[in-house]
Amino acid sequence: MKLYEFAPTPSCRRVSIFLNELDVDVERVQVNVREGENLSEEYLTKSINGKVPMLELDAGITLCESVAICRYFHEATPNRKHLFGETHLEVAQVEMWHRVVEFQGLYAAFQAFRNISGVYKDRETCVAEWGHESKARVEQFLPQLDARLAQSDYIATDALTIVDITGFIFVGVVEKALKIEVLPQYPNIARWFNQLAARPSFQ
Amino acid sequence: MKLYEFAPTPSCRRVSIFLNELDVDVERVQVNVREGENLSEEYLTKSINGKVPMLELDAGITLCESVAICRYFHEATPNRKHLFGETHLEVAQVEMWHRVVEFQGLYAAFQAFRNISGVYKDRETCVAEWGHESKARVEQFLPQLDARLAQSDYIATDALTIVDITGFIFVGVVEKALKIEVLPQYPNIARWFNQLAARPSFQ
Repeated sequence: MKLYEFAPTPSCRRVSIFLNELDVDVERVQVNVREGENLSEEYLTKSINGKVPMLELDAGITLCESVAICRYFHEATPNRKHLFGETHLEVAQVEMWHRVVEFQGLYAAFQAFRNISGVYKDRETCVAEWGHESKARVEQFLPQLDARLAQSDYIATDALTIVDITGFIFVGVVEKALKIEVLPQYPNIARWFNQLAARPSFQ
Repeated sequence: MKLYEFAPTPSCRRVSIFLNELDVDVERVQVNVREGENLSEEYLTKSINGKVPMLELDAGITLCESVAICRYFHEATPNRKHLFGETHLEVAQVEMWHRVVEFQGLYAAFQAFRNISGVYKDRETCVAEWGHESKARVEQFLPQLDARLAQSDYIATDALTIVDITGFIFVGVVEKALKIEVLPQYPNIARWFNQLAARPSFQ
């Protein structure tokens, strides 16, 4: 089994934190996305979307999409962590909050960054105006996230779940790539973020 | 338990097909989104995102996001269907293909329709240029979906899963809202689509 990754990217960090929480280790292969190594013919025969991370199972079967990779390890690894929720209701609440944080948060932040910066303009059409609109939507979402974290220690349930990992990655993207100072403005996000940052698995 | 919906919308149809497949019935409350009934104070106290569908459990707990509602019924209902996959690998493959069909397909189609038509311009800023770019990305995704369905009866695994329900809704949005004739151009999509359309649960 091999995990193809470009370690600094948000999606790869998401998988790494998840694996750290499960205490699972796996062989890594670095793929330099900035230099387009993920667009080679060999890579594209294995990957359905040409992105990192990609997990290659020993059977020659591959899995793309970071959350699918997390779900595979969650299902296949005996563990006492319920990072996708435990009860029926929690499983649904994790799905709900994950979609909120991904669609209103992380995905909007990616669209903002990619369309404003043009970082991948060699391979996609960028629309700067949409980048700025997406950034404005991220700014509207932050107080909602802060309000949620005023009521709850973690985003989705009473315990750490994959939604917190995604949320942590999201705040990092917003601070670094979109240059929005999140922690000084949002005390509940700051309390939650700093608590996560202190966990060894998030280092 | 009550399901708040605006029956004609794609997200509500998705949940209805899923419930039909599980043979589950639930009380419905219609919320007219076009007239903004989802933006009332009463609705917004119950919903974290102000959208339909929303499931209100008897305990006064609510769930938003169509896939979270599907997952709740999947977990809470004794059933022999594996609409989120059965084995570890299948569960991961469903997650992978679902994300591909949602991000490259359905979500791009929604962004195309909303930004080109301005249907909700009273409540969101529209960027027509992004709408046209999103439509172009949908047009790039269709041959990928057709190629997948040339290899496999269903999108994610050998059996019907939630990914097929999402894919079916996606093709409907593309044909009706984006005015792209999918079925005459893509024979494998057409074969799969017509097979689904013949199932009683998809009527």
